[in-house]
Amino acid sequence: MLSRSRHVLLAKELLRSTRRGLSASSVAPGRVIFSGIQPTGVPHLGNYLGALSNWVRLQKTAAPEDELFFSIVGWHALTLPQDPDTLAASRKDLLATLLAIGLDPKRSILFHQDHNPVHTELAWILSCLTPIGKLRRMTTWKTRLAASRNANDESEVDESLLNAGLFTYPVLQAADILAYRATHVPVGEDQTQHLELCRDLADIFNRTSGRPIFPLPSQLNTISRRILSLRDPTSKMSKSSPDLQSRILLTDTAAQIKSKIRSAVTDSTPGITYDPLARPGTSNLLTILSACTDEDVHAVAGRYEGKGHGHLKADVAEAVEDLLKGPRTEFERIRHEKTFLEAVAKAGAERARERSEATMVCVRELLGLDS
Amino acid sequence: MLSRSRHVLLAKELLRSTRRGLSASSVAPGRVIFSGIQPTGVPHLGNYLGALSNWVRLQKTAAPEDELFFSIVGWHALTLPQDPDTLAASRKDLLATLLAIGLDPKRSILFHQDHNPVHTELAWILSCLTPIGKLRRMTTWKTRLAASRNANDESEVDESLLNAGLFTYPVLQAADILAYRATHVPVGEDQTQHLELCRDLADIFNRTSGRPIFPLPSQLNTISRRILSLRDPTSKMSKSSPDLQSRILLTDTAAQIKSKIRSAVTDSTPGITYDPLARPGTSNLLTILSACTDEDVHAVAGRYEGKGHGHLKADVAEAVEDLLKGPRTEFERIRHEKTFLEAVAKAGAERARERSEATMVCVRELLGLDS
Repeated sequence: MLSRSRHVLLAKELLRSTRRGLSASSVAPGRVIFSGIQPTGVPHLGNYLGALSNWVRLQKTAAPEDELFFSIVGWHALTLPQDPDTLAASRKDLLATLLAIGLDPKRSILFHQDHNPVHTELAWILSCLTPIGKLRRMTTWKTRLAASRNANDESEVDESLLNAGLFTYPVLQAADILAYRATHVPVGEDQTQHLELCRDLADIFNRTSGRPIFPLPSQLNTISRRILSLRDPTSKMSKSSPDLQSRILLTDTAAQIKSKIRSAVTDSTPGITYDPLARPGTSNLLTILSACTDEDVHAVAGRYEGKGHGHLKADVAEAVEDLLKGPRTEFERIRHEKTFLEAVAKAGAERARERSEATMVCVRELLGLDS
Repeated sequence: MLSRSRHVLLAKELLRSTRRGLSASSVAPGRVIFSGIQPTGVPHLGNYLGALSNWVRLQKTAAPEDELFFSIVGWHALTLPQDPDTLAASRKDLLATLLAIGLDPKRSILFHQDHNPVHTELAWILSCLTPIGKLRRMTTWKTRLAASRNANDESEVDESLLNAGLFTYPVLQAADILAYRATHVPVGEDQTQHLELCRDLADIFNRTSGRPIFPLPSQLNTISRRILSLRDPTSKMSKSSPDLQSRILLTDTAAQIKSKIRSAVTDSTPGITYDPLARPGTSNLLTILSACTDEDVHAVAGRYEGKGHGHLKADVAEAVEDLLKGPRTEFERIRHEKTFLEAVAKAGAERARERSEATMVCVRELLGLDS
């Protein structure tokens, strides 16, 4: 166990302020930002442009009093079957990736979720406040139910074979966030419903205990870019698609990037226009290009009006290579620095545990589990 | 965190043995016995005769190489709403009770479940291996579903308002047991189905990881006495019944015991016979008496054949007082020894954490979460 004195001090201050009716967020000096990513393989361009580059941007733009927590959420990965060797490698590589893209372990708290048992402890506590009905209404659960039998409609399928972790993981997500009394969570639109559950649980706990111990976290609106599959631009770029040509990995070489962009599915309409509904493949390439160069997508589209797909693809490949070259080189350097990576993971876990332990000292006291 | 060296050593030995195909139980020197009790108020005579006195007997009769874990399972108590002050008091009083009835913290590991986060960590891991269908078939869940709407049949009721903890607590129970790689669990018949789930989960983990890391725990057949309510002898003596006359608490005075036994519901049939179906109240008194004097219930019944209920009740009250006097006096003494109680809880938690950490080092390595 960590030395308890500092936790207890922090916890006492929190209990004192909430006793005066102040909410936990109003007494915190700045924002507390939390986000997580699953260690299931090397991140792809969609992960990078959709989430990870936002983390870097948040780190750059945060006020000095803001706290940033970025977590590799290994326990969430267990909701689907994992090969242990692959998972172990992914966990290490993902930490190296976070460092390679520019997250600074001195500024942000980078840590493995499974190095901090507070997450599962708080998840259990919250699960005792979570009505089954709320979990049943989660669209991610409904989608999984439907997918489990390739059914068209979730009402047709039998859930009995799905595991309980798949059903309750939104509660673990809520615990991930509330353990640090996070005030802001940068997540995509597909996570809005989960964040709503998190807010509900925080509110139930606050009302039940009569203390506004948990801030109700807000969705942090970041530039959210939905990057689509290069082979099937009607679906998101995904780690789990069997077609390796459908995604660009952060570790892909210039030649691989070029080949994958060249074979990207577009359409036979002449010229380039941005029309996500009618021309998803072409529009996806424009989205990627505008994200790489940090420009408005319509401005980019305007420049290609009279040009062909070949021209666009060559430019996209070059822009992606320009974007990924630095992180890739950095990743290849860092991933072999075993001692450094272990030290970063250890220090991050210690800070995360200390910070969350202060929350838990309050939570346990309010529940009657404090001694 | 505890010093990791001893855990790692123990874990390495375990991994080595299971790699040779030996099961975890065949390499352990003796039995590992685990049992738990919820801290929801002072235990009553039914808890004592049904479970706690068995713990004391197990401690007396265990072989020197057997390990005994007795846990106060506070996290399970959260599945129902609790008043924090009452829960805090119950947790402390229950530890004092365990000591008062004769459990020896040097011989047995007495600890608060919520002092060892490994329980919730392993529960999360196991929940990812637990098909929803298995939880849905638990009779305790079905009963709660039915009770939640006073319905006659569980198919009629809506589960949406029940909390997720109530649904998944059998998984936490399995984690309680498997964290110590327990081989034997003394539980009543109403827990047979939960222990079966625990065995299933141990088996799934062993087969998935290719290592027989978890012994499949056996139900330990102990003298199981079902003590009934003194006011409604068709149901078990229960902590939750609103009628205080229905149960005798371990802290009741001689006068309270006398009064409660005197007002116990029996029947108007003349004479005393042991007939649990036709004469539940009378038979319950005989069960209590035989349990107190450690005799066969039929032998006891024979002695009262020509006598009346008044005679029997007087003897039962005396026998219960004889049984409870020692523990009660000891409880009143120990409950005020705050420093001693805290030291016992702390030492127990440390031993429990160390022992379970050795299990978790293996579990995490086998899952790919080891570094």
